[in-house]
Amino acid sequence: MSTPSLENLAARLNRLPGIGIKTAQRLAYHILDLPEEDVEGLSSALLDAKRRIRYCPVCGNFTEDELCSVCADAKRDGSVICVVENARDVSFMERMREFHGKYHVLGGTLSPMDGVGPEDIRIAELVERVKTGEVKEVILATDPDVEGEATAAYIAKRIKPLGVKTTRIAHGIPIGGDLEYVDEMTLYKAMENRREV
Amino acid sequence: MSTPSLENLAARLNRLPGIGIKTAQRLAYHILDLPEEDVEGLSSALLDAKRRIRYCPVCGNFTEDELCSVCADAKRDGSVICVVENARDVSFMERMREFHGKYHVLGGTLSPMDGVGPEDIRIAELVERVKTGEVKEVILATDPDVEGEATAAYIAKRIKPLGVKTTRIAHGIPIGGDLEYVDEMTLYKAMENRREV
Repeated sequence: MSTPSLENLAARLNRLPGIGIKTAQRLAYHILDLPEEDVEGLSSALLDAKRRIRYCPVCGNFTEDELCSVCADAKRDGSVICVVENARDVSFMERMREFHGKYHVLGGTLSPMDGVGPEDIRIAELVERVKTGEVKEVILATDPDVEGEATAAYIAKRIKPLGVKTTRIAHGIPIGGDLEYVDEMTLYKAMENRREV
Repeated sequence: MSTPSLENLAARLNRLPGIGIKTAQRLAYHILDLPEEDVEGLSSALLDAKRRIRYCPVCGNFTEDELCSVCADAKRDGSVICVVENARDVSFMERMREFHGKYHVLGGTLSPMDGVGPEDIRIAELVERVKTGEVKEVILATDPDVEGEATAAYIAKRIKPLGVKTTRIAHGIPIGGDLEYVDEMTLYKAMENRREV
């Protein structure tokens, strides 16, 4: 075909996660039909996001400014720190609108199989923040998978001796969930963490 | 959030067909994790495709050159023209590798409801090509929906008086299909167009 730029676009879209070759081709054709200013807008949005977004030096969240919006907000409670795996997890937590503390982004999980040790994720930075004395509680909100649990357990071991309350988010049956579709491990956790009503 | 460029990227990805807001956000986060040269590559692939791809002045297919690869190929048989709705349909036909004639892209279908009449799609150009005398057969390969059928019927009426063989691609049960899952209209067409074996 005499359209290498079209094939190049489809091939590059195809590299994105969840975009198969058929979807990539459909998107490429759609892009040809868009007004030029829309294509320019998408093209520069890609570069802008990549170039402007950096990590907050305090908590590791995404930001375009010196500090992220949470760390820069004087109304947020610095005595409670919620520890998450990735910067995107911060936006998931913020969607809840019920947490008024601050965050600490690890930038990964401990994974000896992949050669990721405690010095490869932002654990030392968390310990430093706790040592300032302002922090009263550290909430461990890593994912409830093998790496997330191991990372939470490791951090708890490092933080507790500093005299700070260390908690783990609850695991159980999701709201609106159905016992029939809940796996055994979740059910076991839900039973284990049952509360008096 | 202090990340307007990230939100802008997600919003622009969300405008693409089949990309919901959750997928758009996931893609935006993924793009932040990519090496800068990959993001630059995708960004310029968008602009390149949009700016370089034009329509072949003869058939209306996509091209970056003067003529499209089909029209420029001296080995293609100019006596058979396959009429399709859109330039992307050409690549679907070419995938078959069995058609050695040329194409004519209409750039749409007749649709009185949407105010699309014969002068809004490339029918006059097709009539001109047929009038040159080189063309022996016009194959109507518009989609088998209401607009596609109406467009095929209209073109047949315009072309036939010029003394050119006018054919319509066959409708029937797809290869590998199952009678159970074929709709009544397709089954009716398959019966109507049955052939002696």
